[in-house]
Amino acid sequence: MAGSLRNVDVGDLVERTRAGDIRAVARLITLVENDSPVLREVAAALSPHSGRAQVIGLTGAPGVGKSTATSALVTTLRAAGSRVGVLAVDPSSPFSGGALLGDRVRMQDHATDDGVFIRSMASRGQLGGLSAAVPQALRVLDAAGYDIVLVETVGVGQVEVEIASLADTTLLVVAPGFGDGIQAAKAGIIEIADVFVVNKADRDGADQVARDLRFMQSLGGPHSTAGAWRPPIVKTIAARNEGIDDVVAAIGKHREWMQGHGEVARRRRARAASEIEAIAMGEVRLRFAGVHGSAALDAEAAQVVAGTTDPYSAAADLLNLLRSRSGA
Amino acid sequence: MAGSLRNVDVGDLVERTRAGDIRAVARLITLVENDSPVLREVAAALSPHSGRAQVIGLTGAPGVGKSTATSALVTTLRAAGSRVGVLAVDPSSPFSGGALLGDRVRMQDHATDDGVFIRSMASRGQLGGLSAAVPQALRVLDAAGYDIVLVETVGVGQVEVEIASLADTTLLVVAPGFGDGIQAAKAGIIEIADVFVVNKADRDGADQVARDLRFMQSLGGPHSTAGAWRPPIVKTIAARNEGIDDVVAAIGKHREWMQGHGEVARRRRARAASEIEAIAMGEVRLRFAGVHGSAALDAEAAQVVAGTTDPYSAAADLLNLLRSRSGA
Repeated sequence: MAGSLRNVDVGDLVERTRAGDIRAVARLITLVENDSPVLREVAAALSPHSGRAQVIGLTGAPGVGKSTATSALVTTLRAAGSRVGVLAVDPSSPFSGGALLGDRVRMQDHATDDGVFIRSMASRGQLGGLSAAVPQALRVLDAAGYDIVLVETVGVGQVEVEIASLADTTLLVVAPGFGDGIQAAKAGIIEIADVFVVNKADRDGADQVARDLRFMQSLGGPHSTAGAWRPPIVKTIAARNEGIDDVVAAIGKHREWMQGHGEVARRRRARAASEIEAIAMGEVRLRFAGVHGSAALDAEAAQVVAGTTDPYSAAADLLNLLRSRSGA
Repeated sequence: MAGSLRNVDVGDLVERTRAGDIRAVARLITLVENDSPVLREVAAALSPHSGRAQVIGLTGAPGVGKSTATSALVTTLRAAGSRVGVLAVDPSSPFSGGALLGDRVRMQDHATDDGVFIRSMASRGQLGGLSAAVPQALRVLDAAGYDIVLVETVGVGQVEVEIASLADTTLLVVAPGFGDGIQAAKAGIIEIADVFVVNKADRDGADQVARDLRFMQSLGGPHSTAGAWRPPIVKTIAARNEGIDDVVAAIGKHREWMQGHGEVARRRRARAASEIEAIAMGEVRLRFAGVHGSAALDAEAAQVVAGTTDPYSAAADLLNLLRSRSGA
């Protein structure tokens, strides 16, 4: 490891991160979030020290109480002695929190607890975007010795599915009156959820939401195969900490099942593969950025506007140009 | 043009599209949305017949009344004799409408009007995703002779900014009580808006929203340069069709300004350039997909999990592999 580059002493930051120094952890996450030139060095330095943390994904539509559920989970996991990291990911915002999640009032319960690290991440950065930055941030928290990292995503879109797929266990949080889980079904999240959490279970319609989920499960998908994990449905009232123990128990059962089926290793390989791919795509995007604005792309664009070529032929030309420039 | 491929007679569809046959238009949009193998052929056949339509982007946070504003604009533009296409783009949903926008009740006012074509598009498809599919759909509507195409996006995230940048004129719709435009400012949409629409102008806080926008404008950005376009702020009550004439007038003024400054041509070249780039990136992604699941990526992923390499080195290996396979 070179140690120092552009005034950042990566070796020192990694050392302090591994010792649990919260400021070093925050600094490293900022580095990986900003596509810092030392990104590669950070990843290389952390790689040997990661792979221990259990990653729990929480996803669901806005308003179902994900932040409240996350906060309640943190309380329960802390009581059991675990050190807990939280990454709150908002793909629709180009701004990163860094600061403490502003409106997420309940999270502030944990602001003074040294065993909890909370950070929000947004779509800033280029080199693979969140698809690359979130795994790097996970690696930082992992190396810093957080036993469990909760990754909370906002919304139920494509990016959320992608990020949730990073987790060892993915929780889908639903609530009465928020599309009854149908929204989630649309986004393909039903397929990737390992535990369903029906929050606000004291409200009218909670039983119906649970029935809807059971029905959608029965329609097939990976969970209907014999021997497959059948996602349990857990009812909670996160705002009163009710049912959170059951969620933790369900996560534990899922972990046991995964360990018995070689699934932990399989998921981690899949996570590494998509991380590698995101970084590689980001690299290609940077190369395009080098060409963008160049005479070649401008000329192709002008021809497309004039109708003398079509964008597919122009794209093929551009790829050929990149290939010849990369000199293989 | 080869004409027929995989049972799709592209030449015939293009001919019928140019004659304004709504079923052919719908069919072609479905083809471009699904990354059909004939995509390239469709683009090549349409390219000589496009470039006439005026593209208006509408963006803004959920709840501000974008669909209502879109519908009111359609009514006003139709009354002036224009044929109008509408693309409602929802990047957070993996499902395409195809059918008529379900819950967008007010849009149904236009369901029986032959001079209006309404279509929703979502993030289905791979080859460049929405960044490639939306320009293709625009090209179809353009070739079909729609004078004006309204592109309405849901939300104010990164994808929305990207899609809004396709338009000749971009409207940012805000409303009292929906983050007062601050949300939009965060997402960088203030910078790309050509006209600000303060909808629900009869509500408390409308004046404050307008003042906030003026203040944010005054902070600088492209609009503060001498001779630059200064986005007007138009108040509307779209649900009662109030102020919509003013919006149309503001769009017209912006168009005049653009024509006087070579800006129409510049925007169209920029649009073509980003379309070409999106297609090229999609092509690279497909090549990765060919490698994904292969022994090479699996082996790299296993090494990352084991901590014997880091994802950046693995990505570099993968790119070298792709380059050698593409055989340049």
